[in-house]
Amino acid sequence: MTSRDIFQQILKKKSFLCVGLDPEISKLPACVADAEDPIFEFNRRIIDATHSYTVAYKPNFAFYESYGPRGMAALDRTVRYINKLDTNIFIIADAKRGDIGNTSKMYARAVFGEMPFDAVTVAPYMGEDSVTPFLSYPGKWAIILALTSNRGADDFQYHPGTGQRLFEKVLNVSQRWGTTDNLMYVVGATRAEMLADIRKIVPDHFLLVPGVGAQGGSLEEVARYGMNSQCGLLVNSSRGIIYADSTDRFDIVAGEKAREMQEEMAIYLAGRFKV
Amino acid sequence: MTSRDIFQQILKKKSFLCVGLDPEISKLPACVADAEDPIFEFNRRIIDATHSYTVAYKPNFAFYESYGPRGMAALDRTVRYINKLDTNIFIIADAKRGDIGNTSKMYARAVFGEMPFDAVTVAPYMGEDSVTPFLSYPGKWAIILALTSNRGADDFQYHPGTGQRLFEKVLNVSQRWGTTDNLMYVVGATRAEMLADIRKIVPDHFLLVPGVGAQGGSLEEVARYGMNSQCGLLVNSSRGIIYADSTDRFDIVAGEKAREMQEEMAIYLAGRFKV
Repeated sequence: MTSRDIFQQILKKKSFLCVGLDPEISKLPACVADAEDPIFEFNRRIIDATHSYTVAYKPNFAFYESYGPRGMAALDRTVRYINKLDTNIFIIADAKRGDIGNTSKMYARAVFGEMPFDAVTVAPYMGEDSVTPFLSYPGKWAIILALTSNRGADDFQYHPGTGQRLFEKVLNVSQRWGTTDNLMYVVGATRAEMLADIRKIVPDHFLLVPGVGAQGGSLEEVARYGMNSQCGLLVNSSRGIIYADSTDRFDIVAGEKAREMQEEMAIYLAGRFKV
Repeated sequence: MTSRDIFQQILKKKSFLCVGLDPEISKLPACVADAEDPIFEFNRRIIDATHSYTVAYKPNFAFYESYGPRGMAALDRTVRYINKLDTNIFIIADAKRGDIGNTSKMYARAVFGEMPFDAVTVAPYMGEDSVTPFLSYPGKWAIILALTSNRGADDFQYHPGTGQRLFEKVLNVSQRWGTTDNLMYVVGATRAEMLADIRKIVPDHFLLVPGVGAQGGSLEEVARYGMNSQCGLLVNSSRGIIYADSTDRFDIVAGEKAREMQEEMAIYLAGRFKV
């Protein structure tokens, strides 16, 4: 997908919502716990209930790897299910990968060759050759961590250099490695006020914004400081949607929560684009 | 395992060698290509031939993930095989993981709960809460990337701050999160001259040193600049051992290469300890 393709979907659905699919078996409603593949069954019902309101899904690999082979099989089924339902939905492998070039090439093969993901999140610490193998698949994206939404972001990401902090250097240096059609950045919503500064460095790139909802970020601020001429935002919500209800109505309530966010997003989009 | 346990194994085997198990199907000798599980069969023969000369193995997850579920099944079999052969061998999940606390907890469960690894490599970009979940398993280790052996290391790891570069800050800050019995650091052998400076910051921690062999680092320099009072080094070699020969004698040649490294290591150990 190109950035233009993503923007078209955003206008069509009046939404820049990404739903994080992070299933924890201990949190799954009783009604899916007895299914043959509880993780997939949970995801499938969440996807059915939310896909009208979302342009992207983001399964975090940790939640699947932690259940071993059956977890990874459920991830595989989930991605194929989304892809079959609507090929225009952007599917992000939230895996925070990154290794020496030779090895990142194998990680790229895992997410783009073995599974039909559109994008993968990548940690920047190991530099250019750890990221570029993810950029060699036409139509696929690398989403580089810039400023994350967690407390630990303070430890190194603000490390001051000569004139620029580490996350600013990551943005400045890494944008040379790809284009606005294969590189995005993670910028946490808990730092929404930073988005204005970040937009000076990467005015045209899409940003993947976690941290709205459970982690406390404001959607309104993210839209105000982060939106660009192609919207340029994918705002993720995981726990606030998928665990909004723990009864057998969990999917209906998840759909309602997703629709609420979509409706708020529609207002911000209407203020800027003809939708 | 404690650092003392690792040191005891080093003295016993007169070796601080770690063998990287990074199987690529396209590189596997014809004699294993027809096996039911070629990846496991390759690893098993490498392990049988090298385990007398090594104190650690380090499968890199990318090489298994890139073959989907059958790759991950081969990884699982490999780790259990090593563990059954000799529980004193230190097994490192080279996965470069790291995410927000809630998520890193799931990654920790994947490598320590689902599989019998002793350690996992971790990227430091997301800070403290991304690393500490790996430190809560008794006897298990997190190995934090400090200075890596690839070209891209220059992009951000030397980012100068007030008085310390990024990799120095990573070493200074992160050692507060754990102890010398659950935290190690990755320091590439291609920067062996940096080891003297690094030892001033982390005199007592074990270091995992990739980059000897195929990547050009010198074992002699690593030993000279990096050894501490408990040896404090695990030097990894992957391609230089496992792909030293591509015939049906691949395991015998791998064993010879491992023994050559072990014999050189024995000299450096004898210069320092009673072995």
